[in-house]
Amino acid sequence: MLIVGELINASRKLVQTAIKEADSAYIQQVATGQFTAGAHYIDVNAGVFVEEEARYLKWLITQVQQAVDAPCCIDSPDPRAIEAALSAHKGIPMLNSISLEKDRYDVFLPLVAGTDFKVVALCMSDEGMPETAAARLNIADKLINELVKNGIAPANIYVDPLVQPLSTSDTYGREFLQAIEAIMTAYPGVHTICGLSNISYGLPERKLLNRTFGIMAVDRGLDGMITNPLDKEFMAGIIAAEALRGKDEYCRKYLSAYRRKKFEF
Amino acid sequence: MLIVGELINASRKLVQTAIKEADSAYIQQVATGQFTAGAHYIDVNAGVFVEEEARYLKWLITQVQQAVDAPCCIDSPDPRAIEAALSAHKGIPMLNSISLEKDRYDVFLPLVAGTDFKVVALCMSDEGMPETAAARLNIADKLINELVKNGIAPANIYVDPLVQPLSTSDTYGREFLQAIEAIMTAYPGVHTICGLSNISYGLPERKLLNRTFGIMAVDRGLDGMITNPLDKEFMAGIIAAEALRGKDEYCRKYLSAYRRKKFEF
Repeated sequence: MLIVGELINASRKLVQTAIKEADSAYIQQVATGQFTAGAHYIDVNAGVFVEEEARYLKWLITQVQQAVDAPCCIDSPDPRAIEAALSAHKGIPMLNSISLEKDRYDVFLPLVAGTDFKVVALCMSDEGMPETAAARLNIADKLINELVKNGIAPANIYVDPLVQPLSTSDTYGREFLQAIEAIMTAYPGVHTICGLSNISYGLPERKLLNRTFGIMAVDRGLDGMITNPLDKEFMAGIIAAEALRGKDEYCRKYLSAYRRKKFEF
Repeated sequence: MLIVGELINASRKLVQTAIKEADSAYIQQVATGQFTAGAHYIDVNAGVFVEEEARYLKWLITQVQQAVDAPCCIDSPDPRAIEAALSAHKGIPMLNSISLEKDRYDVFLPLVAGTDFKVVALCMSDEGMPETAAARLNIADKLINELVKNGIAPANIYVDPLVQPLSTSDTYGREFLQAIEAIMTAYPGVHTICGLSNISYGLPERKLLNRTFGIMAVDRGLDGMITNPLDKEFMAGIIAAEALRGKDEYCRKYLSAYRRKKFEF
């Protein structure tokens, strides 16, 4: 399971304040905490600062990579901000995200073509959000084919089938899970990734729903998550689910997590 | 989700003592607790008393049905004990369990043929425990066909694909889950049921593994469980999983469970 730590996002008040005040100690503490908890990529998002996004994103990446030996997931739709971020980034970044929306596609394709960047490919088009597994598969198919045609290795593609709230429709959980399974079956080598917490929007006990949905998604083959790695209860479910699904030889990772007290919360 | 409350089992020390001392208050308290927590059937098992099993099973059923308005799941391989239990039982019982093992099959078939009893059909044969999904499906197919041929309605058949410990093989979780999905797909109307806790035998943090596996099994279509309905954390995961899978219209059951404080533990 590839974990992208989601906490350095300027829509979170403490992060926003830290950015404004150039409080690198706080940013570095959040980066280190996520890295220690198992994040492979540190997501950086400064989207709330429209005018200053490029400058702040660059600053965030510099702070993060001074603190931890990990690549970043550059989370922006703005080409100027992405260029600035890339100029500061060491190693191979993840870009979040290309989609079939024309504006976004035209920005991202030249940025990623021929690179070995990791690319999040969002199942979204100008016709709106897909509601069914079939509609997601249709968008994923086009995106994967275009990316591969433009020199992106399948193993660097992370399809995000886009979680929609269960409170809006009873079928949204099931259709998403079927999309994960369909994509993982149809495109061997390609990965899937997503944030899960949208599923519980508008319902009570969101953490219960999020961690339950995470387990179901792992069972369907999901192999990447944009999430809070400091949520021990959530992460414990994911580690257990990977063992139960047969993706953890001799339960080694499960037993190691147990010994490192990851299941104490 | 059909819940069979598993707690009235003489292999549990307090239950064994209560049976020996004819402590009907204790037995009735355990029955009422499980019924209130949502059990549809109360399992009764007096298997540890080899000589006295028939008498004790009959006594247990009488005590249970004086306390709660619920049928029992008669959990015995002994024809004399089952006959005694049936003579005391009110309503339509569940019998646990027929299998392809010749001894067991020959005892159970005449007991259930032409009845409207619920029948647990265990995926076990004289060739031993099946290890793969395909081997389970093969046994399930024979059992379902024989039961239907002998006048059991498909809706009264509960196939138990038999959980085996993950500590024995990395593949046992996955093969079981695939068996659930295959049976639920191949035989519409037939149910699946199982006890889940064997999965975690020999591993630490068994409750974490059991509740994670329960969620995955619900996602694959499992619609019956032989379990402890008083385990609120386990049950919360099942209720959330059924909503996420689209089996809970407008999340009504989920919201009702929330209001009844089922998610507080």
